[in-house]
Amino acid sequence: MRMYDLIEKKKRGGALNKEELAYLVGGITDGSIPDYQLSAFTMAVCFRGMEKEETAALTMEMAESGDRVDLSIFGEKTVDKHSTGGVGDKTTLIVAPIVASLGGIVAKMSGRGLGHTGGTVDKLESIPGYRVECSPEDFFSIVEKCSLAVVGQSGNLAPADKKLYALRDVTATVDSIPLIASSIMSKKLAAGARSIVLDVKCGSGAFMKSQEEACTLAEEMVEIGRANGRNMAALITDMDRPLGSAIGNALEVEEAISVLQGNGPSDLRKVACALAEEMLSLCNGWALEEARAQVKKSLDEGLAYEKFKEWIAAQGGDLEAFLAARAAKEWQQEEILAPEGGMIIKMDAQGIGIAAMQLGAGRATKEDPLDYQAGITLLKKSGDRVEAGEPVARMYACDKRRFSAAKERFLQAITVKEEPFTQKPLILKRIGGRD
Amino acid sequence: MRMYDLIEKKKRGGALNKEELAYLVGGITDGSIPDYQLSAFTMAVCFRGMEKEETAALTMEMAESGDRVDLSIFGEKTVDKHSTGGVGDKTTLIVAPIVASLGGIVAKMSGRGLGHTGGTVDKLESIPGYRVECSPEDFFSIVEKCSLAVVGQSGNLAPADKKLYALRDVTATVDSIPLIASSIMSKKLAAGARSIVLDVKCGSGAFMKSQEEACTLAEEMVEIGRANGRNMAALITDMDRPLGSAIGNALEVEEAISVLQGNGPSDLRKVACALAEEMLSLCNGWALEEARAQVKKSLDEGLAYEKFKEWIAAQGGDLEAFLAARAAKEWQQEEILAPEGGMIIKMDAQGIGIAAMQLGAGRATKEDPLDYQAGITLLKKSGDRVEAGEPVARMYACDKRRFSAAKERFLQAITVKEEPFTQKPLILKRIGGRD
Repeated sequence: MRMYDLIEKKKRGGALNKEELAYLVGGITDGSIPDYQLSAFTMAVCFRGMEKEETAALTMEMAESGDRVDLSIFGEKTVDKHSTGGVGDKTTLIVAPIVASLGGIVAKMSGRGLGHTGGTVDKLESIPGYRVECSPEDFFSIVEKCSLAVVGQSGNLAPADKKLYALRDVTATVDSIPLIASSIMSKKLAAGARSIVLDVKCGSGAFMKSQEEACTLAEEMVEIGRANGRNMAALITDMDRPLGSAIGNALEVEEAISVLQGNGPSDLRKVACALAEEMLSLCNGWALEEARAQVKKSLDEGLAYEKFKEWIAAQGGDLEAFLAARAAKEWQQEEILAPEGGMIIKMDAQGIGIAAMQLGAGRATKEDPLDYQAGITLLKKSGDRVEAGEPVARMYACDKRRFSAAKERFLQAITVKEEPFTQKPLILKRIGGRD
Repeated sequence: MRMYDLIEKKKRGGALNKEELAYLVGGITDGSIPDYQLSAFTMAVCFRGMEKEETAALTMEMAESGDRVDLSIFGEKTVDKHSTGGVGDKTTLIVAPIVASLGGIVAKMSGRGLGHTGGTVDKLESIPGYRVECSPEDFFSIVEKCSLAVVGQSGNLAPADKKLYALRDVTATVDSIPLIASSIMSKKLAAGARSIVLDVKCGSGAFMKSQEEACTLAEEMVEIGRANGRNMAALITDMDRPLGSAIGNALEVEEAISVLQGNGPSDLRKVACALAEEMLSLCNGWALEEARAQVKKSLDEGLAYEKFKEWIAAQGGDLEAFLAARAAKEWQQEEILAPEGGMIIKMDAQGIGIAAMQLGAGRATKEDPLDYQAGITLLKKSGDRVEAGEPVARMYACDKRRFSAAKERFLQAITVKEEPFTQKPLILKRIGGRD
């Protein structure tokens, strides 16, 4: 078999068969296929797409290209959740303890943030002592003890995807739905959970700008998972505006705790509960209504928050120290005032994510250090009225020289106008899931 | 400027401007743009194409990426000819002396053959003593003396094209009309002639299979040349069957001499004369009819053959030794007999070119040695009737063990059937040229 012929076949619109995909992924993994052939191939995929079976087979090959986590000792109730990345999205911190408090097993690997989107692992690291790097033995023993662990990606998970993604990233071939779907799902399949719930973000702050694209991506991922024997569900959720009010690592942990304590912003609670319900429905075999009642009960009775505390402690985190540091307020802060009065008709999530990044909450490049206390609290959200001069947000950072650029970026991201405003639904669509 | 953005722009269907193309070609030439970005770019070009101005600007940049031959000391009558490659195409050997005998200046660089198509330089090397490698000083002094020199490609001509072509060759991105056009024309522009005539071969033995494709390619090349200040003409000529009867290096020189002496196959004479007329029309400013009369006169009065002898001698070739070697017939030969009787309705040029290559007349890879005496003489051509057992061709090679595979390949390439047969015109279309 020759890579040349696979490029040629894809260029003409053909579908690669299992043997060809195995050859492709093998050649990516062992480095025998040169980058220049791979990038020509991925560009051809951008134009020609892939068939459903082809995408599923590619994903399986990539999932099998390195280590796979075997969670079978935990039985059938292992369940994972993946978000395609948003601004202010701290749902994992809420969802994971809810699900674990109700019988689900959440043995999860999470990523770091880059650009305007945050990463769960960064958020957890704002808790003093929390260990995101764990030996497989420690990871398994924490899961065994409290049905829940969240660690950074370790080992050699889907190395073919890692190489392919790095190449796509520098050759303008990222935005291909089958390649995105197989990249996400190869890691999820390798991570071993029996059930997987996807939160596909859609809107100005997300990679998928339109609902149509988001649905296509969600459908592809659900099909890939099912073709590989997993229980699958996906929600398309709004990311035209940030989720919740807090953007920034420690700020988001604080807001997640607030939801777990029965408070917090209603949009965040709503999305977190919907995701938890899908996860429990898949892993426990519950009807959605049953799941809904159980999730409410877990939050109302504090079971989820108890599980959260147990989990953070199990991974070495010192919640008391975290809360004490928050109370000490050893940071700079500054309000952002509305330049004019009216209705906030737009609050662009991407722009606000970038403003938070500029404050130190995120990384422009992989090497940038984080300021865990930095970020933004939204005092108003789209659909709210403001007077001229009224505070719309508060910025936090250790270094107050960062405020002026971030403020400018923030103000570019919001639109205040006397215009009728209709809020998009938070949960735009449900795909897959238990009937 | 970033290569990433140029890939992205082309992927979305945009046209690169002059600055972007200068950046691209500069980065190819100095190696600062990695191959994996270049190949993604060329694949995007395969899908999106290029605009006319864009192609012309790319070509100019590639022509300027290395050495350029300055033929201005020879005045305005310098004229070049390029064939896109065919089987049995020895027209340069006929056309160049005709044109030089009538006032044109032919200071030409030619290539070697690869695969089923031959190369002028290989053919000339079958003449003992002929020097295809020349210092620039010798090249210029031969042109000065006899208005004609044909050498191998030397120096650092269009190095950006060389790199880009090598990459396209291994990434299935060769078949893009603007990339083919700019690759050919960048070398022709760098080679310095004021007038350029293109012979775009079309048919089963050519790279362009359909007349439509061939016309598009010819039109693009004519436009590129004109946009860069050259006089341009193109003929689309038939390559469904080999041109003339001889395929193989010494065999083709012999056949070219025969045409220069007023004999030889009529199809070869016709195509050669048509090309010579276009060249003379461009470089001498003659009307086509005037050119036609002059070409006939040059052949009839032996001026072209005299010029041929002068040229070969000037480049060190010993024509007497060549003709003596041909007469000595120190090679093996074998006839190919028609397996059945009927009308030859197909004589696939590519298949016959491969059969000749198998005999030693061509190279499967760049390193293969040539047998200059090897090749095929066609005793019948498409449109001829044959009896079963009648000879249709004669094979020649120093090593007779090569006959059986070549014979098998040859017979696969011809179709004998009782079916009406219409010969396609030899010259399918004329594009550009002097009105």
